[in-house]
Amino acid sequence: MPPLLVCFCAGSNGSWQVDSVTAIKGESLPLAERLAVLEGAEAASAREAVTSWNLRGVVSSLKYATREEINLMAAKGQPGLNRPSAHRAALIPIRKTPAWWALAQDERRDIMTRGGHIAPIGTAALPAIARRLHHCRELGTVEEPPFDFLTWFEYSAEDEPVFDTLLANLRATPEWEYVDREVEVRLTRVSN
Amino acid sequence: MPPLLVCFCAGSNGSWQVDSVTAIKGESLPLAERLAVLEGAEAASAREAVTSWNLRGVVSSLKYATREEINLMAAKGQPGLNRPSAHRAALIPIRKTPAWWALAQDERRDIMTRGGHIAPIGTAALPAIARRLHHCRELGTVEEPPFDFLTWFEYSAEDEPVFDTLLANLRATPEWEYVDREVEVRLTRVSN
Repeated sequence: MPPLLVCFCAGSNGSWQVDSVTAIKGESLPLAERLAVLEGAEAASAREAVTSWNLRGVVSSLKYATREEINLMAAKGQPGLNRPSAHRAALIPIRKTPAWWALAQDERRDIMTRGGHIAPIGTAALPAIARRLHHCRELGTVEEPPFDFLTWFEYSAEDEPVFDTLLANLRATPEWEYVDREVEVRLTRVSN
Repeated sequence: MPPLLVCFCAGSNGSWQVDSVTAIKGESLPLAERLAVLEGAEAASAREAVTSWNLRGVVSSLKYATREEINLMAAKGQPGLNRPSAHRAALIPIRKTPAWWALAQDERRDIMTRGGHIAPIGTAALPAIARRLHHCRELGTVEEPPFDFLTWFEYSAEDEPVFDTLLANLRATPEWEYVDREVEVRLTRVSN
């Protein structure tokens, strides 16, 4: 699969109603009424003028997961997006510190492993929580990017506690000490 | 260091004279007279109309190197760009196959390790050859990117054989079986 450009456009349009925007660390994002998730050519041509805010990211190759972890997640069941039962979503933009990005690949991976990011924390949320990661650190801005990742989650209303546990466990890991900006946007699907 | 956007602009301007453009695998790039290397805001505003071709990439965090390898390379001596003695340069845009990008992180890393990409092949070229890697796979296009990486090398005329050996050794690795497009642009500095 080639990289897929995705634009999260907050404003007055889109099939997701914005229920809350919460600054977990650092500066928040403005509250908006709706969120539209645009992909590919639609994402590239999204006009900033008509939105409250506009975050772009790219779905790309896996940067840390091993074959063993990929197989483990597949065995647990990894749901795709747009399940009819998944009426809840969360968009969590995150930026990590310069200290994180100055680490070697094996040092970053070790910190993730020790905290249990992929397993057991991530795998415990399967198959309830659908997840898609969007990279935006390298999107070609000339300024420091506002975020490094945009993570998108979808789940049913009854699985919301599973998602809350996932977030709480991730935020308690040593890896999260390297997060210097995190915003949590909670959403409810209002149309298809 | 935040990510740095760099634009390699081939046309009639720039401090590097284009000596040759060679297709190593897949489609070539048009020959041009000069190459300009623009960084940051200059790279973002480079106008495509006035150039023959225009490739953008981002200098970012290390994706594979371990702390041990980083220390080994530092001990050998890693020259920066723009050494007064470095009158030769090469720009090598590379694209890897979908099969490469579908591999897990540990599988890609294992292939690089077995081929000796970083050590002993890469370290053997130090301190003679300066190198800067630019990522362009995730630059937000809506089409399949023409290249995944743009690698830039600088060296003195007398160190050209060291560079030729580096290229020959890398191209003989199992990793290079995953390369489906590679162009080699050789250059000579004509002004500072």
